[in-house]
Amino acid sequence: MSLVVVGSVAYDGVETPHGKVDRILGGACTYIALAASYFTHTRIVGVVGDDFAPEDTEFLRSRGIDLEGLEHVPGKTFFWKGKYSPDMNDRETLATDLNVFADFQPKLPESYREEPYLLLGNIQPELQRDVLKQMRKPKLVGGDTMNYWIADHREKLLPTIREWDFLLINDSEARMLSGEHNLLKAAAAIHAMGPHTLVIKRGEYGALLFARGRHFMVPGYLLEEVFDPTGAGDCFAGGFIGYLASGGVSPTRGEIDDTDLRRAVIYGSVMGSFCCEKFGPDRFRTLSRAEIDERFHEFKTCTDF
Amino acid sequence: MSLVVVGSVAYDGVETPHGKVDRILGGACTYIALAASYFTHTRIVGVVGDDFAPEDTEFLRSRGIDLEGLEHVPGKTFFWKGKYSPDMNDRETLATDLNVFADFQPKLPESYREEPYLLLGNIQPELQRDVLKQMRKPKLVGGDTMNYWIADHREKLLPTIREWDFLLINDSEARMLSGEHNLLKAAAAIHAMGPHTLVIKRGEYGALLFARGRHFMVPGYLLEEVFDPTGAGDCFAGGFIGYLASGGVSPTRGEIDDTDLRRAVIYGSVMGSFCCEKFGPDRFRTLSRAEIDERFHEFKTCTDF
Repeated sequence: MSLVVVGSVAYDGVETPHGKVDRILGGACTYIALAASYFTHTRIVGVVGDDFAPEDTEFLRSRGIDLEGLEHVPGKTFFWKGKYSPDMNDRETLATDLNVFADFQPKLPESYREEPYLLLGNIQPELQRDVLKQMRKPKLVGGDTMNYWIADHREKLLPTIREWDFLLINDSEARMLSGEHNLLKAAAAIHAMGPHTLVIKRGEYGALLFARGRHFMVPGYLLEEVFDPTGAGDCFAGGFIGYLASGGVSPTRGEIDDTDLRRAVIYGSVMGSFCCEKFGPDRFRTLSRAEIDERFHEFKTCTDF
Repeated sequence: MSLVVVGSVAYDGVETPHGKVDRILGGACTYIALAASYFTHTRIVGVVGDDFAPEDTEFLRSRGIDLEGLEHVPGKTFFWKGKYSPDMNDRETLATDLNVFADFQPKLPESYREEPYLLLGNIQPELQRDVLKQMRKPKLVGGDTMNYWIADHREKLLPTIREWDFLLINDSEARMLSGEHNLLKAAAAIHAMGPHTLVIKRGEYGALLFARGRHFMVPGYLLEEVFDPTGAGDCFAGGFIGYLASGGVSPTRGEIDDTDLRRAVIYGSVMGSFCCEKFGPDRFRTLSRAEIDERFHEFKTCTDF
């Protein structure tokens, strides 16, 4: 029983107050899969160009990630370049070269289609919908989206998320999607759109979970040093679904235990926090499961009263 | 054993997206004392003009607040007027008429000077220092300050807070005071300035407690409707010190139990959240201790994992 992750695999150019890298492995699918790989077997669906480096393939493989669904096509890999503000709460996009990602048509390998867990990274809503159709008996389906699809492609986004169990978005996206500033009201409006489980990510301020008529609030982990926040939200998603896919979830679709969901939010927070400790996905070259569990318990110690 | 609270007693004109009031009881001392009065006997020190309404005196007295230290002088009471942004995260000050507050020289009634607990609201650091000198054997002393004193009167602020057990400020003030953006580093720098206990208030995002080499993180309470955030930070302070003064603290100055401090932060959060539910301090006209404890337990339910 594995997790299928669909989304962008990219190269990033990143500048933060701590330094600059011209080209480092990136993309939502990459970060989600790396984070999830600590919890469950993960199979990715994405596309890269002929410039995709063998050492990056090797890095993903070293984390046990199944790359059968990673298409290699002629051309260049998706490239994004950005620069963070001094406090790293804002970033300016300096380049978005879609390259081979512009024509991405996710096709699930036959061996993926029976899998129970699906995480749809932020891509066009029609493609997300098409991927779900290719799955035969998914038990738990959810994903991410962004302001662009919410504002300009709402008619495509709404039927897409209607079929999802969970939606993971940030607070400004939740407000935009629901038309409600108040997050309790926003959550109620989003539940009515389909997803019975909503996770609102708030960056350094933590996250909120809304499910089964209750909510759970978790503050943001305090890091000594935020090196590079790129991918932190995706790693949150990867930790969240990875933990749920690891066996915490009941086998009937939608039958999720509240305790599992809360723990999944903490594991998401933990993975997002580790992501910020080095440039790009470099923290995952050395991170161990023991360190993850230690930070999970630290969350408990720092929030218990 | 009572709590002494020093600070502004005022009238406010407030406009929020939910409505407008031209003149309502306000001031940091008022909010702190009202919130603290649910936990402990509270005695205030402040100054009002001859326009201070008997029904406002009556309201404070109805909460059991000792008004012996509330000086009445000829002239008008401090008046502040502000308008909140649509999302209520920002506010514009439209008027600040110090009036009788301009010459405020806090003088503690003889009966106050033996009290063990002192909360210094945001006033000039010299005055805060002078008040502390008037106390004979304080066990637990702390207070609030603001960007103005941090930026322009640092040489007076530093010797003032050096004598405090705890400091309660918001995150931008903590960053300004310490010169550190990272809050873990900011807290370490502030501890070195004197206060062994630091509470950083983050508005809707909750609060952080740093004490005894550990930290505690609490998310913000989610309200269905934020009516008027005026005074919420002061009510946090009132709930925090009120709970500690109610008996949770060991009788030796500085010997505070970590569990007490964490609970005090939750009670602070609870009082701040109630404050936002009506205009000005109106929520405290009907609020009961049972409602406070219910919300305390709700915090537990919403953060437990």
